[in-house]
Amino acid sequence: MGMTMTQKILAAHAGLSEVKAGQLIECDLDLVMGNDVTTPVAIREFRAAGIKHVFDKDKVVIVPDHFTPNKDIQSATHCKMVRDFVKEQGITNYFEVGRMGIEHCLLPEKGLVTAGDVIIGADSHTCTYGALGAFSTGVGSTDMAAGMASGKAWFKVPSALKFILKGKPAPYVSGKDIILYIIGMIGVDGALYRSMEFAGEGICHLSMDDRFTICNMAIEAGGKNGIFPVDEQTEEYIRAHSAKNFEVFEADEDAPYDMTYEIELGALRPVVSFPHLPENTHFVDEIDRIPIDQVVIGSCTNGRIRDLRIAAKFFEGRKVADGVRVIILPGTQDIYLQAVKEGLAETFVKAGAVFSTPTCGPCLGGHMGILAAGERAVSTTNRNFVGRMGHVDSEVYLASPAVAAASAIAGYIADPADVMDEEV
Amino acid sequence: MGMTMTQKILAAHAGLSEVKAGQLIECDLDLVMGNDVTTPVAIREFRAAGIKHVFDKDKVVIVPDHFTPNKDIQSATHCKMVRDFVKEQGITNYFEVGRMGIEHCLLPEKGLVTAGDVIIGADSHTCTYGALGAFSTGVGSTDMAAGMASGKAWFKVPSALKFILKGKPAPYVSGKDIILYIIGMIGVDGALYRSMEFAGEGICHLSMDDRFTICNMAIEAGGKNGIFPVDEQTEEYIRAHSAKNFEVFEADEDAPYDMTYEIELGALRPVVSFPHLPENTHFVDEIDRIPIDQVVIGSCTNGRIRDLRIAAKFFEGRKVADGVRVIILPGTQDIYLQAVKEGLAETFVKAGAVFSTPTCGPCLGGHMGILAAGERAVSTTNRNFVGRMGHVDSEVYLASPAVAAASAIAGYIADPADVMDEEV
Repeated sequence: MGMTMTQKILAAHAGLSEVKAGQLIECDLDLVMGNDVTTPVAIREFRAAGIKHVFDKDKVVIVPDHFTPNKDIQSATHCKMVRDFVKEQGITNYFEVGRMGIEHCLLPEKGLVTAGDVIIGADSHTCTYGALGAFSTGVGSTDMAAGMASGKAWFKVPSALKFILKGKPAPYVSGKDIILYIIGMIGVDGALYRSMEFAGEGICHLSMDDRFTICNMAIEAGGKNGIFPVDEQTEEYIRAHSAKNFEVFEADEDAPYDMTYEIELGALRPVVSFPHLPENTHFVDEIDRIPIDQVVIGSCTNGRIRDLRIAAKFFEGRKVADGVRVIILPGTQDIYLQAVKEGLAETFVKAGAVFSTPTCGPCLGGHMGILAAGERAVSTTNRNFVGRMGHVDSEVYLASPAVAAASAIAGYIADPADVMDEEV
Repeated sequence: MGMTMTQKILAAHAGLSEVKAGQLIECDLDLVMGNDVTTPVAIREFRAAGIKHVFDKDKVVIVPDHFTPNKDIQSATHCKMVRDFVKEQGITNYFEVGRMGIEHCLLPEKGLVTAGDVIIGADSHTCTYGALGAFSTGVGSTDMAAGMASGKAWFKVPSALKFILKGKPAPYVSGKDIILYIIGMIGVDGALYRSMEFAGEGICHLSMDDRFTICNMAIEAGGKNGIFPVDEQTEEYIRAHSAKNFEVFEADEDAPYDMTYEIELGALRPVVSFPHLPENTHFVDEIDRIPIDQVVIGSCTNGRIRDLRIAAKFFEGRKVADGVRVIILPGTQDIYLQAVKEGLAETFVKAGAVFSTPTCGPCLGGHMGILAAGERAVSTTNRNFVGRMGHVDSEVYLASPAVAAASAIAGYIADPADVMDEEV
């Protein structure tokens, strides 16, 4: 029997010609990543184990993006600890406040992740890089410490689910709607410890930014990783961003899948995940009028330039509804610059929205837009658990940038088509 | 004996032809201001006194600028309380996140304060509006509550100090340097409960933004208020921003001053206030090399467009020094837009600085750039007390935007002339 795309990458990094689901293997790592929340814990483990040096100072990446610019003394202390460690170890890929971005937007942009890589990151959304045809997955701080020390990690080879994407997405349907729809279909544990492998001719209609969004949320279905085949668009993206060599792996014809799903992209409509689980999905055109207090557009899920362009189309010539705060967070400083160049920053601010420096901020209830009791947000982020963006009595509705921006204008959760059809 | 400019404004608002220093008078208020820190307390007092309605829904101004976009659940709860009060009372001048700015940058820009006004604000830097020839002063939340209820406030008429500004400032000497120099000269209690009245032909060389900066820091010398005479520049500014009528008051020829100081602007050099008091001033060209970790450019003191333009000249074509974080916070959304239009935002981000949405943020140790133990910042803000920007073992050096920007490039507290003289 053949191997899935994920299994082939893992086998190659374990020096094995074949692996099977369930098998325990040790893989060479191309990259070990951490942020300001997880790295301090990893550093403590690293030191406790008596390790002196990271395995490769060019293959450890540290991005202080969660509580930065520092929210408080505690986060400042953590960042200082990280900064001191970076200096001590001579780590080359450290991205300081002002020269950084949200880790999962930044690493592909900086060319640090490419097709065929095996990457671990002490952040659950590390699965994002599967969009480039890499195996990448989130780990705990202890695994990060072990990875920094040895350049290796143990994995149980995952089995896989296959998602065949067919046709072309309808207007206002994006990668976010596709992944929310899938999570609604299979549930938040529907892909538990499995690979989510995407396939089908529909993929050619998805931008790289759409694919990053889809892989980013594989973890929200419990997936070990999400992964896309490498096509011309992928190769073009990698060549534009990276000087690294890359290797293209393809699933075997007879690769085993626990389940195969076919999704007609043309039949989808914009999806909203209601509180308090990403699987509580509804089509936006089937819901009652739900007033909102805040809109967040950004995060490692939807803070890329295409996301901002889509949002800007709704804000252009319109104003944010009374009583709504809108916080827009570009994924990286390069995305920020591009948004300024294209006039998007101006559009956002003129409409009455905040356009801030890159940070994870409100996504995890960190800072820069925390909700009070009774408040409701539409957010392009990835989790809507109880209290995720603030008070336990607040609510987060997950949606695409189009739905979020349309809702900001309407003052309630709105169908993008309805807002766009109105006169500017 | 005649009256000072401040005394004449107060007399007119008390319906008296004459007032003397030390006299207790009740004045009509043109404006009562509060922010997200002080307004919740004022609302509680307002309700505790059984008051039902604010005296004039157009003369109460509320700006949530300190812990916004909300830093945490507590600040979100405070902001919600303020928002609910604004709605209940029909307060017209409420500035929501995304449509706001730092109160003392915002109010003049929105034309809410003009020459001859009497303004109280529950924020110590309310003295800023003296730049427009108004009497404005900071009060506690209880006085804000009483002001919101009655439209009146009791004052003890202040005596005054006179500062005669002569000549033209030398290159890289700004309003910030002038006021720091003055505070260094008279001390942080040198003007205790007195007016600081500025005079002299040197004023014509100071932009309105310089004058805002100078009046803003009157409180740092203990002053009850700072005030500038109204000249053509002032009238031009007011007409460009406000439709309100304004009245020009002038100090009498024989007005009494406790002390008169003459300052030769041409003889000044850039000033830095060392920790932990604004009076610990040094000329920048007389200090040792002091390495820094962070630079903050912004705040109600120095977050205006001229401040950003000056800073941008240093960042243009240069990079922030390794190991330094730079956080630039425009004073208002209009200033943000102007900075984008003029290419300043691009310059800052290209240089490796954060350009964020308007907020008081790090100035008061709130959020968006808090310091860890042992860290050192150069900041264009107004206070460098122990722990002001974070940990009690951190240090803040106060300076102008030119010094702050030059230091960001150098990596240590630097003379603007030295950095500007280097090749780009």
